[in-house]
Amino acid sequence: MNYYTDSVNKLIEKLSKLPGIGGKSAQRLAFYIINSPVENVMALSEAMLDVKKKIKYCSVCSNFSDTDVCNLCSSSNRDKKIIMVVESPQDMAAYERTNEFKGLYHILHGLISPMNNVGPNDLKIKQLLDRIQNGQTQEVILATNSTVEGEATAMYISKLIKPLGVKTTRIAYGIPIGADLQYADEVTLSKALEGRREF
Amino acid sequence: MNYYTDSVNKLIEKLSKLPGIGGKSAQRLAFYIINSPVENVMALSEAMLDVKKKIKYCSVCSNFSDTDVCNLCSSSNRDKKIIMVVESPQDMAAYERTNEFKGLYHILHGLISPMNNVGPNDLKIKQLLDRIQNGQTQEVILATNSTVEGEATAMYISKLIKPLGVKTTRIAYGIPIGADLQYADEVTLSKALEGRREF
Repeated sequence: MNYYTDSVNKLIEKLSKLPGIGGKSAQRLAFYIINSPVENVMALSEAMLDVKKKIKYCSVCSNFSDTDVCNLCSSSNRDKKIIMVVESPQDMAAYERTNEFKGLYHILHGLISPMNNVGPNDLKIKQLLDRIQNGQTQEVILATNSTVEGEATAMYISKLIKPLGVKTTRIAYGIPIGADLQYADEVTLSKALEGRREF
Repeated sequence: MNYYTDSVNKLIEKLSKLPGIGGKSAQRLAFYIINSPVENVMALSEAMLDVKKKIKYCSVCSNFSDTDVCNLCSSSNRDKKIIMVVESPQDMAAYERTNEFKGLYHILHGLISPMNNVGPNDLKIKQLLDRIQNGQTQEVILATNSTVEGEATAMYISKLIKPLGVKTTRIAYGIPIGADLQYADEVTLSKALEGRREF
């Protein structure tokens, strides 16, 4: 792929390392950058470096934040008695979009996965336990994915929290809204049956 | 979409302006950048700025180049008698990949398109004519797309070149290799018939 001049090839190579960006997309992005005003390219480049410079973990919930305590944790509108434990900031954003949950979050930044050499100490579990010790917390909702790793992580954390006398709950399994029963897998179907509730 | 901290929101906003990058991809890219080593982010940022700083038009073929005359134009292995006129550096790269064409290129950087306010003077047509005047050129292959704009541009250029006594040719229309005749459109089919050659 040496059809372009050096600086273009180098840019294409760097861009194609980004997730979900293949060779063709990297080319398109590179030529878009070449044809963009230099101010725009500088702004993008600065935004990238800025994020690396400014971002740290919120000292409460371990989310990424520009400030020592993130906006959500320092907000007075949130119910400080409930903590929802999620894998990533993206999962948190997904729940925030529902506008249903008014408690606080705790971001693990991963899931326990021996296959990938990720153990409990690689996650923000210690920070979660420290946080619960203050006695304000009444419920911890374990909202990790319903994958093997998500389940294992939820189970592991719930066992650590139980002795502290705080209620732990797990988000519900079942049929997603709008889905067709005939195409649902057996495990989901039996979990949906198991979790049935009275009208 | 204010679920993240300021610097992250800003980065997502900048990334989502790139072509083919929607909100979700921009989020994924942003978190990839956050989790990347700072050296890698700096390297990408530098590659972006570098390309803006170094790149100029090759004084011969108008392709993007770090040097005054690009590698291809200054190569001694190319047939300087034939010039292939293409819309963009990407189209040039597509033809280079075939390894069939050993002549030189000329990059127009666009096509004539009154709808988008692009006239002949916005393209590198003058540079092409100047180049042909040197008397070395024997053939100009017009390899613009077979769209309305591509056709119009090819037609326009061929009319300017004819008086200079240089042969102009147009790449062939027809059925793409591996395509199914029954799904080809009528115009392509009749062009393929029109352009038939003896075995």
